[in-house]
Amino acid sequence: MFGARFRRENSIWLRDNRRMATLGLIEYQHASSEVRAVFDDIMTTRQTDTINNFWKALAHDPKTLRRTWQSIKEIMAPGALDAVTKEMIYLAVSATNQCGYCIASHTAAARKAGMNDAMLAELMAVVGMANETNRLASGYQVEVDERFRS
Amino acid sequence: MFGARFRRENSIWLRDNRRMATLGLIEYQHASSEVRAVFDDIMTTRQTDTINNFWKALAHDPKTLRRTWQSIKEIMAPGALDAVTKEMIYLAVSATNQCGYCIASHTAAARKAGMNDAMLAELMAVVGMANETNRLASGYQVEVDERFRS
Amino acid sequence: MFGARFRRENSIWLRDNRRMATLGLIEYQHASSEVRAVFDDIMTTRQTDTINNFWKALAHDPKTLRRTWQSIKEIMAPGALDAVTKEMIYLAVSATNQCGYCIASHTAAARKAGMNDAMLAELMAVVGMANETNRLASGYQVEVDERFRS
Amino acid sequence: MFGARFRRENSIWLRDNRRMATLGLIEYQHASSEVRAVFDDIMTTRQTDTINNFWKALAHDPKTLRRTWQSIKEIMAPGALDAVTKEMIYLAVSATNQCGYCIASHTAAARKAGMNDAMLAELMAVVGMANETNRLASGYQVEVDERFRS
Amino acid sequence: MFGARFRRENSIWLRDNRRMATLGLIEYQHASSEVRAVFDDIMTTRQTDTINNFWKALAHDPKTLRRTWQSIKEIMAPGALDAVTKEMIYLAVSATNQCGYCIASHTAAARKAGMNDAMLAELMAVVGMANETNRLASGYQVEVDERFRS
Amino acid sequence: MFGARFRRENSIWLRDNRRMATLGLIEYQHASSEVRAVFDDIMTTRQTDTINNFWKALAHDPKTLRRTWQSIKEIMAPGALDAVTKEMIYLAVSATNQCGYCIASHTAAARKAGMNDAMLAELMAVVGMANETNRLASGYQVEVDERFRS
Repeated sequence: MFGARFRRENSIWLRDNRRMATLGLIEYQHASSEVRAVFDDIMTTRQTDTINNFWKALAHDPKTLRRTWQSIKEIMAPGALDAVTKEMIYLAVSATNQCGYCIASHTAAARKAGMNDAMLAELMAVVGMANETNRLASGYQVEVDERFRS
Repeated sequence: MFGARFRRENSIWLRDNRRMATLGLIEYQHASSEVRAVFDDIMTTRQTDTINNFWKALAHDPKTLRRTWQSIKEIMAPGALDAVTKEMIYLAVSATNQCGYCIASHTAAARKAGMNDAMLAELMAVVGMANETNRLASGYQVEVDERFRS
Repeated sequence: MFGARFRRENSIWLRDNRRMATLGLIEYQHASSEVRAVFDDIMTTRQTDTINNFWKALAHDPKTLRRTWQSIKEIMAPGALDAVTKEMIYLAVSATNQCGYCIASHTAAARKAGMNDAMLAELMAVVGMANETNRLASGYQVEVDERFRS
Repeated sequence: MFGARFRRENSIWLRDNRRMATLGLIEYQHASSEVRAVFDDIMTTRQTDTINNFWKALAHDPKTLRRTWQSIKEIMAPGALDAVTKEMIYLAVSATNQCGYCIASHTAAARKAGMNDAMLAELMAVVGMANETNRLASGYQVEVDERFRS
Repeated sequence: MFGARFRRENSIWLRDNRRMATLGLIEYQHASSEVRAVFDDIMTTRQTDTINNFWKALAHDPKTLRRTWQSIKEIMAPGALDAVTKEMIYLAVSATNQCGYCIASHTAAARKAGMNDAMLAELMAVVGMANETNRLASGYQVEVDERFRS
Repeated sequence: MFGARFRRENSIWLRDNRRMATLGLIEYQHASSEVRAVFDDIMTTRQTDTINNFWKALAHDPKTLRRTWQSIKEIMAPGALDAVTKEMIYLAVSATNQCGYCIASHTAAARKAGMNDAMLAELMAVVGMANETNRLASGYQVEVDERFRS
């Protein structure tokens, strides 16, 4: 009887842990030097000592890991738009797509870049309204105004 | 012969024009006083003398017209985020949803609020990248990092 | 000079017409007997003498044509839900997905089944609101209430 | 000792709770009078003594809470469409967008409004089919029939 | 110590079980003969002795169960495209839609059909890139090239 | 009278042409050397003498042009998956997202890589079915099978 309960308990615990990335996560200590180089650059650029699960999952495909990181590094660097604006746009897209992982990670990233609760609230209000009017415009089959075509 | 060509020419013109909103567009001069009040407020608030087709299409449902305008007026007013940031977030959502009408109208609105070509280009780069990584995170079934849950 | 204008005129007309389905449309008179059997059943079931472009495009793949028609015929038949409710749900999905063709064709179908302008307006208001709150719920990462899980 | 163990137990339970709304949930007893007024109206209108997590999460932004509730209250009231039809359309949109929270809460709401299992099944069949044909129409690049444009 | 384990066990177990399909799952032994006939065909066709939760959930609507299975059986059979290509396309769509259930089940199905880790990685890279450029094309309002319209 | 007709005719032609990319298209002869280098690489790699409008639109942002092309070039090169499979996956994603431009351009690209009409038809059938069952799985709130989590 105890055995039965114990097995059940373990299987529950394991089951919860097994909700993992398709190919699993590669931790720094088990990573190839190619992957470590990207992980190092991520930690240096972002001034952190942690690597998000996203990168650990992509590490199974070092080419995609490297390319995706290089693209994000280039795109998210301050330019005509500052860092917090870029992170909020990233979050707005993720909320629109309803990507759980990305909403969680980019809420954290946007906050780190300076988004406070009031900014988050206004961001979400705009995201909600845009998603509403996108469907009203499409649903009513509204034709584009002539002056928006020039 | 001229007649035949003329009719064909006309049929082209008409066909193009018939790509119109499901219920048609209500112009100011044909609008009820309830609708005109909203149109007036839109033109005053936005300091313009034109009404977008979107509002003319919604005018068939005065309650939705009024409610949608009131919500947008409240949401898009500068607060914790400034007007151009809000318009860019609106555009980012519209590009993600691929709403043709909304991309056209909010590109114009964002520009009016101060978005230049360089800002547009960076905005689109972030939108593209976010849409890419949203699917990588979901496709690889990446579990949310513990520290993003607190 | 007239010739030049005429050719330009023609090129407009042709270009517009060339926006056609990938594999083109198969008209009844050119259809195989297998395709004609489906077209006949569509016209009989829907009590009409026209075939939508959708079916004419699918006619290039008779198996998909037959299977899709059989499925729609079965699903859209009145049952626990009546015909107009089903057509309105179809339209709500199409507006959410922003499928231009489907919004156009199912607006027509819903009207034929009994949807009037007031019903259309309320339908679109619900569609818009649902698309808004879907993103607010996801964007704020709201956890499902315990009582909705049982 | 029991205390320590109990807390650990609680901490597991809490961890589940920590998968919580970005800004957390505001319970009635901790809510401002502005928020309580909305909560009271929700409970009165819906004839219930519970507040969904969605509203508790939005309570961090009282303006959005109020506006969203007022809009939903207005839109979901019976009019040209009855309450259960409106809730089923809401559910159809939520299923199309795959919003977990909204599917759970609006399945409950639609049932409360009168949707039974047979209606749910037919609703989902329509939603599935519409999502399929939306992509067939787009994928085959089917042009809109002339008669749907008038 | 036992007490701690026991309580932990119970609270976890209950929580996990309550995340279930709207109408629950129908197991083979409780299924009607109509449902069993479909279950039998699934197991024979797929050479397996397990039925996915998806089919167990659909079993509440035997007509949708039968029609969906017949469609999938017909569509996924090798033809102009082989089985693994079809499963990978299914997975690409599911990752684009971010359907958690479908990503999990079709990752398994694609692997069973022959997809290895390298193929999965390239598939996801294409899915990510396509989602990115879809929004760049829409966001920049790029008009279709003349030569793609013929 | 002729003049009036002529102007109307012209206005049609112009209006059609004005449906152009937000920032317009940059042709080779007006491109900077940085942009020309990318255009040259595209034409060499793809063995063509035409540049798609997509690249001409992106040319306004040379960094995004270069990065996007480099990524596509790397991702779409044959590897564990061959070229036609990759192009079909690209098309499957574009059809799911209903991106008009991308469906048109990647239908052409997939055909150039070897996709025939029968393959296109099977591809679209899978895309349609996947979009249907994605919503059935989400709509019925089907929980992931234990064996898909390992």
